[in-house]
Amino acid sequence: MAKPTPLSGFPELLPEQRFVEQQVADTLRHTFELHGFAGIETRAVEPMDQLLRKGETSKEVYVLRRLQEDSAEGHAGIGLHFDLTVPFARYVVENAGKLEFPFRRYQIQKAWRGERPQEGRYREFTQADIDVVMKDELPFHFDVEVARVMAEALSGLPLPPLRLRVNNRKLIEGFYRGIGAADPQAVITIIDKLDKLPEEQVAALLVSDAGLSDEQAAQCLQLATITSTDTSFVERVRALGVQHELLDTGLQELSAVIDGCAAVRSDRFEVEASLSLARGLDYYTGTVFEIYMVGFEFLKSVGGGGRYDALASDGRSTYPGVGISFGISRTLVPLMSRGLLAADRKVPSAVLVALVDEEGRADSDAIATALRARGIPCEVAVSAQKFGKQIRYAERRGIPYVWFTGADGGHEVKDIRSGEQVAADPATWTPPNDDLRPQVLIKETEQ
Amino acid sequence: MAKPTPLSGFPELLPEQRFVEQQVADTLRHTFELHGFAGIETRAVEPMDQLLRKGETSKEVYVLRRLQEDSAEGHAGIGLHFDLTVPFARYVVENAGKLEFPFRRYQIQKAWRGERPQEGRYREFTQADIDVVMKDELPFHFDVEVARVMAEALSGLPLPPLRLRVNNRKLIEGFYRGIGAADPQAVITIIDKLDKLPEEQVAALLVSDAGLSDEQAAQCLQLATITSTDTSFVERVRALGVQHELLDTGLQELSAVIDGCAAVRSDRFEVEASLSLARGLDYYTGTVFEIYMVGFEFLKSVGGGGRYDALASDGRSTYPGVGISFGISRTLVPLMSRGLLAADRKVPSAVLVALVDEEGRADSDAIATALRARGIPCEVAVSAQKFGKQIRYAERRGIPYVWFTGADGGHEVKDIRSGEQVAADPATWTPPNDDLRPQVLIKETEQ
Repeated sequence: MAKPTPLSGFPELLPEQRFVEQQVADTLRHTFELHGFAGIETRAVEPMDQLLRKGETSKEVYVLRRLQEDSAEGHAGIGLHFDLTVPFARYVVENAGKLEFPFRRYQIQKAWRGERPQEGRYREFTQADIDVVMKDELPFHFDVEVARVMAEALSGLPLPPLRLRVNNRKLIEGFYRGIGAADPQAVITIIDKLDKLPEEQVAALLVSDAGLSDEQAAQCLQLATITSTDTSFVERVRALGVQHELLDTGLQELSAVIDGCAAVRSDRFEVEASLSLARGLDYYTGTVFEIYMVGFEFLKSVGGGGRYDALASDGRSTYPGVGISFGISRTLVPLMSRGLLAADRKVPSAVLVALVDEEGRADSDAIATALRARGIPCEVAVSAQKFGKQIRYAERRGIPYVWFTGADGGHEVKDIRSGEQVAADPATWTPPNDDLRPQVLIKETEQ
Repeated sequence: MAKPTPLSGFPELLPEQRFVEQQVADTLRHTFELHGFAGIETRAVEPMDQLLRKGETSKEVYVLRRLQEDSAEGHAGIGLHFDLTVPFARYVVENAGKLEFPFRRYQIQKAWRGERPQEGRYREFTQADIDVVMKDELPFHFDVEVARVMAEALSGLPLPPLRLRVNNRKLIEGFYRGIGAADPQAVITIIDKLDKLPEEQVAALLVSDAGLSDEQAAQCLQLATITSTDTSFVERVRALGVQHELLDTGLQELSAVIDGCAAVRSDRFEVEASLSLARGLDYYTGTVFEIYMVGFEFLKSVGGGGRYDALASDGRSTYPGVGISFGISRTLVPLMSRGLLAADRKVPSAVLVALVDEEGRADSDAIATALRARGIPCEVAVSAQKFGKQIRYAERRGIPYVWFTGADGGHEVKDIRSGEQVAADPATWTPPNDDLRPQVLIKETEQ
């Protein structure tokens, strides 16, 4: 075959990069499971009518057909899912009788969108979602729980600092109602543009499209400037002098989420009440989230979510939920393509067992077996080249140790980074824990 | 939405089933990595011309198009991969300059085929592949290695006994040449039908289609009856009195693979030289493998592979390889749909921390945090129902322990299976190891 070229929008990773992605998924999964979230996978495809329920995404859907498909077969059509929420909603309704509610689930899977590829936006991408759904009613404390679980999971990742921005729809809607806005949803939609348009333009839109007075528009923009990493935002909102019952509820809820994440906060992980955050989608009804990677704000949000009072409904029951999605490809691929993130070796092996001659292969295999029995990944040299060549073989792959057997049957292991070589017994020798598996190396960028 | 119905051929798992699938994948991966195999994933799609290189599979390919695609965009067309070998070959050639050879890789991913769904054959399925490829030349000892690694990985799975059948193309081709067959490949293709057609019919085909005499056909069928779980097959082949250099090489190679797997053999895992095994695909050049699940032979093989002397070629170099693929969906889904395989709980939680009243939620959260800090998955009760109801909540999910805080602030933990309740400290109490994570339950079938 001629040398193939990459497909734009379908990033693939080298082994030393895939190791990082795998470790990120493992870390997330470990935290999710510690909190009682069960993992599921849904099929990659959904019926087209499910995928097209939200009209705005229709242009991005990949439609499937079998190459030899007889159109008489009458397939209504299936397509690849473009997120993990639509399939999850369908899975919940389909299996409602077999699931226990509240249903805490995580899902780490690929999704596909046919949109124009650009950095951070791919046609194939992996994301990690957590959601809690219940039947009919979902207590508010789950909003705090999903925020805390995702914050805890993300704060353990080998990434630049992340920022979880939180707001509450009730808070902003109550505020807009409190100042007399006739159509709060219109205000939300316009405020959501603050990260794309200059403030004056947003103010003009609030007047022209949401029917606000100049003063009302100014009040909305004042609210949007408020951010805090603790609950001091409450006082600042109160200082604006607006009264509404829904605003009170929203302030309480947002405070509870911010307080609930206090233990996770660090210089690697920020949690911030951010009152400009609106998230345009109209199915959010309370808490809303967005995740940003510090220094990579040009990627826009790398995750988000919120509370929705009807994820799904089957006529008899509705299933309210709250969840957050984190974009694994969206964060990792830009870091990797800049050379900022990779594992320190290309293979899992911690040890290369050298080969004296081909007749000695069984002996080298036995050493490798003894090491593996104690959880030490290793491989045996391909051929009985000169030891210098075998050491260079290990070097090229980043394997830290080479194991030698002397003519007298004695064993020695060499740390090829330091050159130190010591006598060792395959039944007991163990490398330092940090050498057992590849380590993730991240270069911090100048900011 | 109306209650959705499953899509035929796209099996989905409940959380207690998905846990088993995840554990199977983890076990495989752990063994693969111990042996120095690096994990990769390839994109789900390949250009159609890659997918159609083997004509026979063309009818099974799912072709993709974007819903709003302008045909003027000039996409040559992409489709979903139908195995992990075609994408791997493409990945190797595309990244040859960045990979180190021998390249040992494992790949655990989904693939899609539009074939008619039946038990064990799905339109979406997960498989686990290992392969070793080199540039230009691949020493034979890698055949032994991949057999041993896959055998070791499979023998650790919570499944009915598995059987790895091994044969060697050189052995049978040498034998056929030795008896004077003019077209050994035609003989191989017909012998490959032995698991579908009665022996007499295969004999007739050998005469009519491969040009053998009745006596030659009888010799081929005699060879095909030979099986052994040790190297005694060599003597039985020699007793047939056929001489050919290629036969000698094949006997040596097959013996080496059978010997190399000796340490893995158990009553849960058989390795068998099976001289009827041919595998129809004409790219195999030496060792060939198939995997069967004992008691589920009607599924046919649940995995297979072999040595190919040209997995891929970029004009300058060829990349010979040897590999085995194991069908995860193909083995697990039939067991699960029969109710033979599931985890013993629906959630990862080992402990439900009970709630006295809503004001006590922060205290219950603190207990949960202390348990999680020591790796114990747990969840806090949804609401302060009567303790009997909270215990039933745990029971329905299979959570083995419920944690209570007394009015005096004392802690007790109840094993709800035995009813035993003991005083416990959240900073030190640990459940038995077997209770920490869900356990896989497998019912053996009558055979």
